Amino acid sequence: MNDDRNMRICQIVGRKNAGKTTLMKQLISHFTENGLRVSTLKHHGHGGEPDTVTHTDSYRHMQAGSIMSAVQGEKQLHVTVNDTEKLTFAEILCLYRLLPLDLLLIEGYKNADYPKIVLLRGREDVELLGQLTNIIAVGCWNETDLQAGNYFTFSLQDVEAALPDLAELVKGD
Amino acid sequence: MNDDRNMRICQIVGRKNAGKTTLMKQLISHFTENGLRVSTLKHHGHGGEPDTVTHTDSYRHMQAGSIMSAVQGEKQLHVTVNDTEKLTFAEILCLYRLLPLDLLLIEGYKNADYPKIVLLRGREDVELLGQLTNIIAVGCWNETDLQAGNYFTFSLQDVEAALPDLAELVKGD
Repeated sequence: MNDDRNMRICQIVGRKNAGKTTLMKQLISHFTENGLRVSTLKHHGHGGEPDTVTHTDSYRHMQAGSIMSAVQGEKQLHVTVNDTEKLTFAEILCLYRLLPLDLLLIEGYKNADYPKIVLLRGREDVELLGQLTNIIAVGCWNETDLQAGNYFTFSLQDVEAALPDLAELVKGD
Repeated sequence: MNDDRNMRICQIVGRKNAGKTTLMKQLISHFTENGLRVSTLKHHGHGGEPDTVTHTDSYRHMQAGSIMSAVQGEKQLHVTVNDTEKLTFAEILCLYRLLPLDLLLIEGYKNADYPKIVLLRGREDVELLGQLTNIIAVGCWNETDLQAGNYFTFSLQDVEAALPDLAELVKGD
């Protein structure tokens, strides 16, 4: 898939504690084991910041005023951008065009319009389905929460069983 | 300077313990205080890796196989790329084109061809000057190390005094 840099994008959305982080890890592992080059993007939620390591040069550069700092090691590149209100979602996605990647799994950014797997904690979250676009699958803890609807649904109690179907939906094959 | 996204690039190079990290911080502060939007890139040196924080989602995504992971908070974006042998230096520089920046200060990558400030620990490092391109200034601890040469030279004992001249050279004005 990666010759034409045709990267699929899929979002995993849902309220706090719906199981997004766990599903992300399962999907990353599944696709990686199947030979795909996977990347991820997570929205930290309002008021939160990613953890900052304060003894690095990047941090010292930021303290001195740098807006964007990167450190390249032999195998890893770490980039910190200190001014994200200037970055649009589309510009963030441009970062991912720099590498040959097959798939970008996005956790959050629920108002974006990419194909979405929506996770419901319970019946009170069903209203989310009316607020989101481009839903390709719905995961729920209790399948009776979702008796209606034309979505592909799966149980969050046993994601492993649903992974092959989810993978096909994400790949769009 | 930032309307046309015409970003100046300047490298700070020299052997280990020549004073690169300290000069980087002084230049970042100086330019930031003068209203420039500064960014930085550092090469960690052979065998080294940037510090990794192991309790983050980025780290967990990488463990599961992700090649590139980003986390966006309200003010900061952290990006980790796990496969940097696939990234060329030119591709890394592309990251910096995504933001309106006036200046990129690069620590290391001594074989790149951008304007360079070379730092010498002592007379034994003078040979570096013959190996590097595009030198705009040379800093040394003992100015008698550099009696010949047409470079702008400054003392690493008192960088503050040289900052205005260095800044002009970096800006190329």
